[in-house]
Amino acid sequence: MKISILKHELNESIQHVSKAISSRTTIPILNGIKIDVSHQGVTLTASDTDISIQSFIPVEDDKQTIVQIERTGSVVLPAKFFIEMIKKLPSEYIEIDVHSHFQTLIRSGATEIQMVGLDPEEFPVLPTIEENQIISVHGDLLKTMIKQTVFSISSNESTPILTGVLWNLVGNELKFAATDRHRLASRSATIDVEAEARINNVVIAGKTLNELSKIIPDQNTLVDIVVSDNQVLFKIGRVLFYTRILDGIYPDTSKIIPNHYKTELVLDTKKLTEAIDRAYLLSREEKTNIVLLMTKEDGSIEISSSSTQIGKVTEQLEVRENNGEPLRITFNSKYMLDVLKVIESEYIFIGFTGAMSPIIIKPTDHQNSLHLILPYRTPQV
Amino acid sequence: MKISILKHELNESIQHVSKAISSRTTIPILNGIKIDVSHQGVTLTASDTDISIQSFIPVEDDKQTIVQIERTGSVVLPAKFFIEMIKKLPSEYIEIDVHSHFQTLIRSGATEIQMVGLDPEEFPVLPTIEENQIISVHGDLLKTMIKQTVFSISSNESTPILTGVLWNLVGNELKFAATDRHRLASRSATIDVEAEARINNVVIAGKTLNELSKIIPDQNTLVDIVVSDNQVLFKIGRVLFYTRILDGIYPDTSKIIPNHYKTELVLDTKKLTEAIDRAYLLSREEKTNIVLLMTKEDGSIEISSSSTQIGKVTEQLEVRENNGEPLRITFNSKYMLDVLKVIESEYIFIGFTGAMSPIIIKPTDHQNSLHLILPYRTPQV
Repeated sequence: MKISILKHELNESIQHVSKAISSRTTIPILNGIKIDVSHQGVTLTASDTDISIQSFIPVEDDKQTIVQIERTGSVVLPAKFFIEMIKKLPSEYIEIDVHSHFQTLIRSGATEIQMVGLDPEEFPVLPTIEENQIISVHGDLLKTMIKQTVFSISSNESTPILTGVLWNLVGNELKFAATDRHRLASRSATIDVEAEARINNVVIAGKTLNELSKIIPDQNTLVDIVVSDNQVLFKIGRVLFYTRILDGIYPDTSKIIPNHYKTELVLDTKKLTEAIDRAYLLSREEKTNIVLLMTKEDGSIEISSSSTQIGKVTEQLEVRENNGEPLRITFNSKYMLDVLKVIESEYIFIGFTGAMSPIIIKPTDHQNSLHLILPYRTPQV
Repeated sequence: MKISILKHELNESIQHVSKAISSRTTIPILNGIKIDVSHQGVTLTASDTDISIQSFIPVEDDKQTIVQIERTGSVVLPAKFFIEMIKKLPSEYIEIDVHSHFQTLIRSGATEIQMVGLDPEEFPVLPTIEENQIISVHGDLLKTMIKQTVFSISSNESTPILTGVLWNLVGNELKFAATDRHRLASRSATIDVEAEARINNVVIAGKTLNELSKIIPDQNTLVDIVVSDNQVLFKIGRVLFYTRILDGIYPDTSKIIPNHYKTELVLDTKKLTEAIDRAYLLSREEKTNIVLLMTKEDGSIEISSSSTQIGKVTEQLEVRENNGEPLRITFNSKYMLDVLKVIESEYIFIGFTGAMSPIIIKPTDHQNSLHLILPYRTPQV
């Protein structure tokens, strides 16, 4: 292969596929980026076997020439060095010229780089996915749904299924859920889909969804989702993002969500976040993150935490609504902060069913989010 | 003590003194910030025994009340928690109220914090320095002189004297020098001083100078410097910065600086930096950072580096001037980059006295900087 390509276009595509390069791979060829040149354009591919990303650069875009192709062909180049070097090349155009034994010559301005390329035949083949059913979701919505659930996954690799987010599509309701057995996050949305479209208990690794979020552009883009037996393919413009579906049965969490509350609070989200954040600062010193929330006789609430070494923080907080029984409950302030940071509603609902029962947190401006935190079993602080 | 103080003024002073708090101290009281309240204002002090920083907040500034003092006194509060908490307090004013046994109550808005304070009598006393002779230097110049020398100090704690920068003031020439035995940086400047002012071989730890640089504001400020037998005091506005002078005899480096060259180059600083940076990317893979610089018959130079795993980078570079013998020399590209990053001159002079002799790098727009790099003893790459 021999091409001349616009540096910034190549660089952008490299940034996309680089998300699939693992620094810990034991398969040498996966330390590389595969470059395939056809008469249509240049395709870059990278993979860590869990996720594979492919980015296509067309010969021409908007009547501007992006790639000049002198000879088609393929090569695999060492990713780490290639990624850093392309960014730093001096000229607007970069020439890539592959000789025998995949010896590659890269030229830009007065810079010449000889690279030891690898045989593209050794690179793993991407999964073939039949595109029977395509589900289109707005990129913004997808990013929000990921952000509002992924923080609740488990980091414990001994239960791999809980390191993922559960996806379901029933009718036109798309629903994500994540739990680490101490907390739960769920987010749903109504989307436009064909009547027969369905997603049944598909679990995708949280770290994969974080990488996916980074690739989805900020402008309003449609992401096409194709689900097969063991793979999901996301199509984002000219980028194809393949990921494995996690094996296993996701636990049924529906039964632990209470449907009535003994105490209900509505609070200013920002003020609550700041108060919990200050209590967290102290609770962190004890490594427990325990804070105590108490309703007061005047209807307000008090949030407090203490550390034998340092002291005690006490916060008084006005409430917008406070209905039901008096309450005294302890919970992990870090878990509460994680929820508060992703809720975009100005006011927040918190429902309690007792000092030892799940705490439910919901935005007040829509019904599509639900967060659950289990309290600590030490309510007498 | 009992005061009410403007949050942003307290916070700024805390940020200054926090530079002296070490996370690795074995003396518990040094994990604290000492607060002294007199009728003039509030003084904060922190120390890690090597450096001590004191910041004064006056009762009033520009006719605005900063501190309201109800009761004078002193206390030491745990630094880490105090620093983070003050930033996050909800109200513009913060009340600090110290009770018996140094129990401290901090109030701001509806937030109340009880802190376990420590006895200020246990806090180390700052050194007394006689202010016989004060040397004033512009903050900008001081920061530049530090930046252009400190990167050449040794990181090897087995020769502590080389972990510092050597200061001398003779006549009205202030001179800084640093070496790690592989390279040397020196920077001098003419300053306005009284005739008898002198600094004789004072060595100050590089990490101390980096902290000092962070405290010197960007606006044009005068820094007053007072040197005693074993301490230096820097006065920067309302901040006092004390540091220990390193013990030991600094090696004489004057003899290794050549005063004539066999080959002299003048190059575009930016283009050279970019070319060396690309060669560095590859040389880094071999952990040696070796690059080869060669003069070519057409007067230009070639910079190259290679890695058996990845390949080879070759850079052609036009020169502005090239006088003397043909040259072929290898050196540490990281050392060269460190120099190029701090030289602000558009063009750069490099002088060589042979493949095994020191390389001299100087800006072309003034005579106050000199950098030296020893070449590798493997000129045949």
